[in-house]
Amino acid sequence: MIVAVVIIKTMNKRIRLFPYGTMVNDENHLVVGGCDVVELMAKYGTPLYLFDELTLRNRCREFKSEFGKRYADITVVYASKAFLHTAIAVLLKEEGYGMDVVSGGELYIAETANFPMDKVYFHGNNKSADELNTALKCCVGRIVVDNYNELCALAKLTENGGYTQDILLRVTPGVDAHTHSHIATGGFSSKFGFSLDNVEDGISHAMSLPCLNLVGLHFHVGSLIGEVKPYLDAISVVLGLAAEMKEKHGFVLKEFNIGGGYSVPYTTEDIIPEIAYYAEQIAECITNTCQSLRLKLPHLVIEPGRSIVAQAGVALYRVGNIKDAAGLVRYVAVDGGMADNIRPALYSARYEAVLANRMNEDNIEQVTIAGHFCESSDILVHGIKLPQVNIGDIIAIPVCGAYCLPMGSNYNAALKPPIVMLSDGCDRLIRRRETYQDLTHCDVG
Amino acid sequence: MIVAVVIIKTMNKRIRLFPYGTMVNDENHLVVGGCDVVELMAKYGTPLYLFDELTLRNRCREFKSEFGKRYADITVVYASKAFLHTAIAVLLKEEGYGMDVVSGGELYIAETANFPMDKVYFHGNNKSADELNTALKCCVGRIVVDNYNELCALAKLTENGGYTQDILLRVTPGVDAHTHSHIATGGFSSKFGFSLDNVEDGISHAMSLPCLNLVGLHFHVGSLIGEVKPYLDAISVVLGLAAEMKEKHGFVLKEFNIGGGYSVPYTTEDIIPEIAYYAEQIAECITNTCQSLRLKLPHLVIEPGRSIVAQAGVALYRVGNIKDAAGLVRYVAVDGGMADNIRPALYSARYEAVLANRMNEDNIEQVTIAGHFCESSDILVHGIKLPQVNIGDIIAIPVCGAYCLPMGSNYNAALKPPIVMLSDGCDRLIRRRETYQDLTHCDVG
Repeated sequence: MIVAVVIIKTMNKRIRLFPYGTMVNDENHLVVGGCDVVELMAKYGTPLYLFDELTLRNRCREFKSEFGKRYADITVVYASKAFLHTAIAVLLKEEGYGMDVVSGGELYIAETANFPMDKVYFHGNNKSADELNTALKCCVGRIVVDNYNELCALAKLTENGGYTQDILLRVTPGVDAHTHSHIATGGFSSKFGFSLDNVEDGISHAMSLPCLNLVGLHFHVGSLIGEVKPYLDAISVVLGLAAEMKEKHGFVLKEFNIGGGYSVPYTTEDIIPEIAYYAEQIAECITNTCQSLRLKLPHLVIEPGRSIVAQAGVALYRVGNIKDAAGLVRYVAVDGGMADNIRPALYSARYEAVLANRMNEDNIEQVTIAGHFCESSDILVHGIKLPQVNIGDIIAIPVCGAYCLPMGSNYNAALKPPIVMLSDGCDRLIRRRETYQDLTHCDVG
Repeated sequence: MIVAVVIIKTMNKRIRLFPYGTMVNDENHLVVGGCDVVELMAKYGTPLYLFDELTLRNRCREFKSEFGKRYADITVVYASKAFLHTAIAVLLKEEGYGMDVVSGGELYIAETANFPMDKVYFHGNNKSADELNTALKCCVGRIVVDNYNELCALAKLTENGGYTQDILLRVTPGVDAHTHSHIATGGFSSKFGFSLDNVEDGISHAMSLPCLNLVGLHFHVGSLIGEVKPYLDAISVVLGLAAEMKEKHGFVLKEFNIGGGYSVPYTTEDIIPEIAYYAEQIAECITNTCQSLRLKLPHLVIEPGRSIVAQAGVALYRVGNIKDAAGLVRYVAVDGGMADNIRPALYSARYEAVLANRMNEDNIEQVTIAGHFCESSDILVHGIKLPQVNIGDIIAIPVCGAYCLPMGSNYNAALKPPIVMLSDGCDRLIRRRETYQDLTHCDVG
């Protein structure tokens, strides 16, 4: 589908939150990935999730280039929990990315896409023996060992199976990241990683194990980290630990995996550091700290997830009802909601929205965009100005690429929406809409 | 499977939260529905959800009998959003229940179970035209009209299709229920129902429509309502409205649907009214209010969901890891979590737990039960005393029958757990565990 794309008629600054190259066409329709979303809606129905290939690739390249020009020895790994599909895995492979997986299921999808297994990093706070065995069998690049029990279990599995496996240990740096408590993972009381008070045992034990090759350390301070300081604090702590372990045990930090968590703007008010700024500060901090601690510069691994995929995703809904609640709130009810995007209810996440079929009109009316689920928390956007909304209008919500569909449910027996990949004017269905029959797909008896 | 059930060896008061007849056997294993859960785990794996048929039937009968003996003219309707499966629908049919559905998907499951459609109540704040048409075609008993736009749409559909449909109007009574804001639905600013300031238009318009038969009014104050007052307040408001509408428009309230929301105890500390108390207070309030307003006693409809199914459900997990986080928290990590039960993360819901394979041991150790998902909010139970936990132990969490599986996701590419129905010592798989292949079931291209 080729559409005539014209200059943006509206100065709607929300456009910037949408995928790269998003525009408004002659008919005042939103155009994403070169495709008129009104036409996409007619073709695929609603609700509908779009992913823009250009944005995915651009974000991949930005991370590689911004970090790469400041720190030569680097691997960029995608945190697939943000959103995984074989189409994403294939794209990552083409972009030379590694992949961070956290379960047998994510490993399965990576395999299905013929993703190079030596570039897979296997994380998780409670990997099962089955999952560890599968990871060993398919020769994943690194297993990121979360705790002492896992280290011992993995030692047995490798010995019994005749494997040799490169591992990292995950360290909890005790850093307070200023983010939602649900997604802060680096504090002292985190369920993840070796605490600083017992990681020495882990390192010395790992170094003694013949079938495990301890190549480095990992930390992850959390998600949606909109400032650089938590990274720098954690880098100092973990490099300090590495220096101490070098001194005491001859440990060599060959690889330093500093996780992900890089934030993205969800609203026009969010002020988030550019990738370049994260890269500059982090590279400088590692370089200087290693120098002062007399450590050889390690191979750096970063694991962006949300920051690769969030902006590439757009959710489309159709307005089914409009209601003034006792003169207090004007509800615009759409045909999706908390089952396809639980982030507003779960994290009080804020989103913007546009009226995708009338992009030329001014935002004059304060509304609340509600879903169609039987629960009061099923609100997608609280209090946002839009043009006057009518039943049948199309609402587009930007920055829906991460943690919406992966946390999606069939609450109220809703059908999960289809996913369409957009590439320069072409649309390709990569996941079909569920059917009613899919709801009982696993039922027996 | 018949097990030798002996007297309860432990005075563990958490037992009371489990399904009716839950016991401990000679081997100190938890016995639910006459089945040793350790044997169930060996047979079906973990995580695993159990539902006990006796508890489901007993709860169904308690509601019917406790309300029935205080208010003769009553229909009890199950709110299927709490948990729906064809096996549940069949059981409800046998118990003479009606069913409250909120989507085409729930309607589909009711049909699949050959549920009597005249006992189906179709709710929802944004029903699609397709859903309304399906409801008309399969002759649901009542459509509960949420708002004026829906009333107009339904009027057209019935007229065009040659249908006559019994309807109720949902009224927002403006009552403040003391529950989590996510699930309070009766306040003035709710997205649900006709506001008191415009319901008169709805009633008079509905009465004028030849194809719609307005039989009564509905309200729903919210979920997990642990006190009776919000019901009584809402009953007064809505009966007052009915009396006013009778006076002004000759409206006759034949049917009065007061929704659900009846609470259940999740922990041993929760003090929740007995069904008998809800029934007594509600029946008395309706009777007295109707008398003083000179209204004929309407047919009463109640819609319990959680209170039918919550206690019948038990979640079983296996402990995969134990970790002391910097001496602050002892984490017991299990093989499920926020993907099968998001309620702790979403509503700060509290649960109890027992060590199902060593029920005789005293609770001596303060632990936090964490899931295996890559997120800090993935905690099932914060700070609970258990016997000393070992890797491989089985954790059973009671009161998991409502709003866990229906809100379940495949986050982290986790597989949804199987469901086993227990009936007096027999176990019957009603939903199989998902496979890795199911994860990509809808993927195309």
